[in-house]
Amino acid sequence: MPTMKMHLDLLPDFLRGTAFLGTGGGGDPYVGGLILRQKLEEGADITIMDPMELDDDDFVVSVANMGAPTVMVEKIPSAHAMVACLRSIEREKGRKATALISAEAGGINGTLPMVIGAMTGLPVVDGDGMGRAFPELQMCTFGVYGVPASPIVLRDEHGNEVIVRARSNLESEWFARVVCTRMGTKSEIALYSMSGKEAKETGVLYTTTLAMEIGRSIREARETQSDPFAGLQQYFRTSRDRRFCTVLFEGKVVDLLRETTRGWAIGRVIFEGIGESVGEQLEVRFQNEFLVAQQGARTLAMVPDLICILDQENAEPITTEGLKYGQRVRVVGVSVPPVMRTPEALDVFGPKYFGIADVYTPIEELV
Amino acid sequence: MPTMKMHLDLLPDFLRGTAFLGTGGGGDPYVGGLILRQKLEEGADITIMDPMELDDDDFVVSVANMGAPTVMVEKIPSAHAMVACLRSIEREKGRKATALISAEAGGINGTLPMVIGAMTGLPVVDGDGMGRAFPELQMCTFGVYGVPASPIVLRDEHGNEVIVRARSNLESEWFARVVCTRMGTKSEIALYSMSGKEAKETGVLYTTTLAMEIGRSIREARETQSDPFAGLQQYFRTSRDRRFCTVLFEGKVVDLLRETTRGWAIGRVIFEGIGESVGEQLEVRFQNEFLVAQQGARTLAMVPDLICILDQENAEPITTEGLKYGQRVRVVGVSVPPVMRTPEALDVFGPKYFGIADVYTPIEELV
Repeated sequence: MPTMKMHLDLLPDFLRGTAFLGTGGGGDPYVGGLILRQKLEEGADITIMDPMELDDDDFVVSVANMGAPTVMVEKIPSAHAMVACLRSIEREKGRKATALISAEAGGINGTLPMVIGAMTGLPVVDGDGMGRAFPELQMCTFGVYGVPASPIVLRDEHGNEVIVRARSNLESEWFARVVCTRMGTKSEIALYSMSGKEAKETGVLYTTTLAMEIGRSIREARETQSDPFAGLQQYFRTSRDRRFCTVLFEGKVVDLLRETTRGWAIGRVIFEGIGESVGEQLEVRFQNEFLVAQQGARTLAMVPDLICILDQENAEPITTEGLKYGQRVRVVGVSVPPVMRTPEALDVFGPKYFGIADVYTPIEELV
Repeated sequence: MPTMKMHLDLLPDFLRGTAFLGTGGGGDPYVGGLILRQKLEEGADITIMDPMELDDDDFVVSVANMGAPTVMVEKIPSAHAMVACLRSIEREKGRKATALISAEAGGINGTLPMVIGAMTGLPVVDGDGMGRAFPELQMCTFGVYGVPASPIVLRDEHGNEVIVRARSNLESEWFARVVCTRMGTKSEIALYSMSGKEAKETGVLYTTTLAMEIGRSIREARETQSDPFAGLQQYFRTSRDRRFCTVLFEGKVVDLLRETTRGWAIGRVIFEGIGESVGEQLEVRFQNEFLVAQQGARTLAMVPDLICILDQENAEPITTEGLKYGQRVRVVGVSVPPVMRTPEALDVFGPKYFGIADVYTPIEELV
């Protein structure tokens, strides 16, 4: 995709797409969307940059909100704190940023870098470090392929700032998580500062465009009165990276356990089958994001493949914190690109790390 | 006291005195003493500086170990990590340190700045920020009288580093504590970087000398076969700041509850009276340090006054982690100087903060 400008007309599709890629987590893009809408209405100039236009020696920084999405709907992100994080990273590294990139494409962190782009004039790279949302900082492909997460700058709304310089990305996560929890389970952060070359080589590319196209495919199906789930599947069949997409289950929420604990929203949701799934039950476990979908002893999908819970009728993505008893949904599974399925990647964000007993099997082989 | 050199002959008295001022906490000075002894045996040149010789624009930094003393006896302090903390503070503030000062005179943190002094050539100010040991970072007179604890640099033995820049000293403690806990409830730290003028105006002065003199008074009484408790009381009656000192209780440990939790050693010890206290019970509550001594409903002493538990026979100080069932002890109370009893000081480290119901009453009025 060529470098382009963000504009208001693209916003609803983009937000729907980031919610889809959030796989339940990443923070509801609604709030980020409100802030981004305000910036665009004020005439903000936001460049979405083709990653291939990055110079090798560009200086690219990720900015994000960290915490539990259940908290982020009450503690609104502070764009000013994120800019302050960016400035602290620049002081740490002794360089001015030349571009921003999302740490995760899914959820609120897909939208927030554009807000910071509007405030700083920096372009936002079309891509991210997760290709979705994940609950922990080390789960970025940036880190999987060698970029340190540290230094990480964390700030709260009171102006408190903590800088983590850890020797590994897992330790970066450990220290940042306790600080984030102490900040109220929501922090503004900047992390994964890297060269343009590193961003191109380690990122999941074109996920900003992907989010817009996912959102558009759902909208267009709705507009033509056709099945939005068929529209999604049709989109993924023909998309740039040709993804597998299937409806795993159709059901209604009959049980929900959701705790905000240790810095995340952790729990599971159980669906009783309706429509084609009648007589069956599906359990989906989550740590901010939906991690594994199991029908009895049979696993239908697992991380890093996408498990998305969508409104049964209009395919609107439902976040972890938006789950409610009685909701009627379809659970959709989508494959992820090869960069997210290497042994190195699965070591960091495959099922084993999350305590899931199954060996990773791609969704297209499970279904 | 004039500026002087630390030497091996002073070490045993000094260590006994820092253990006394530790009031059970501050980390057993034994380990710090071993490191300091090694440095002195290698010929280290350690200057103990009269605070009045500080220039107003000197740059004074506190270096310390943070955590639970129960952990510090197993995870040995790293002098190299403390030097690295000092260097990071210097980078943060853009100035080279010209002197070191203890954050707390009691326990291991009375000795460690001398080790760092040996390694860096920096003089160590005769004084500290607590006049004893306390469990939390904001409980320094430096902070009570206006010096920010931040920036705080924390490091672990793996080279991980976290920098806290909080807006208040209480928030500095909050963030540093969760990081310290994550580091294994033991961190090397540097904090309270300040001008020479601030060190002179806000510190508890001459507590290095005080520790040596306390240790000496106990030793000299032992050497002359006289009662070391009488020796202590005699010393305090005639000491520079004329302190009140009394034996509160004589007893043996009959119950002990000690948990390493939330970053501290927390609990209580119960003594059954012997000798003059026969038929009575005393309960002492602690959070690293001994906080309050109560005989039934009657409070005998409370923070910030010193509550020291000493071996019944030879008056050797016993630390929180050294308490054992059946130990025979005398519990001694000592008054603290006026700088530690102002309303501002009592707000920060008086009984109310520790959840003790009593209004602060000086020990000399209680007994």
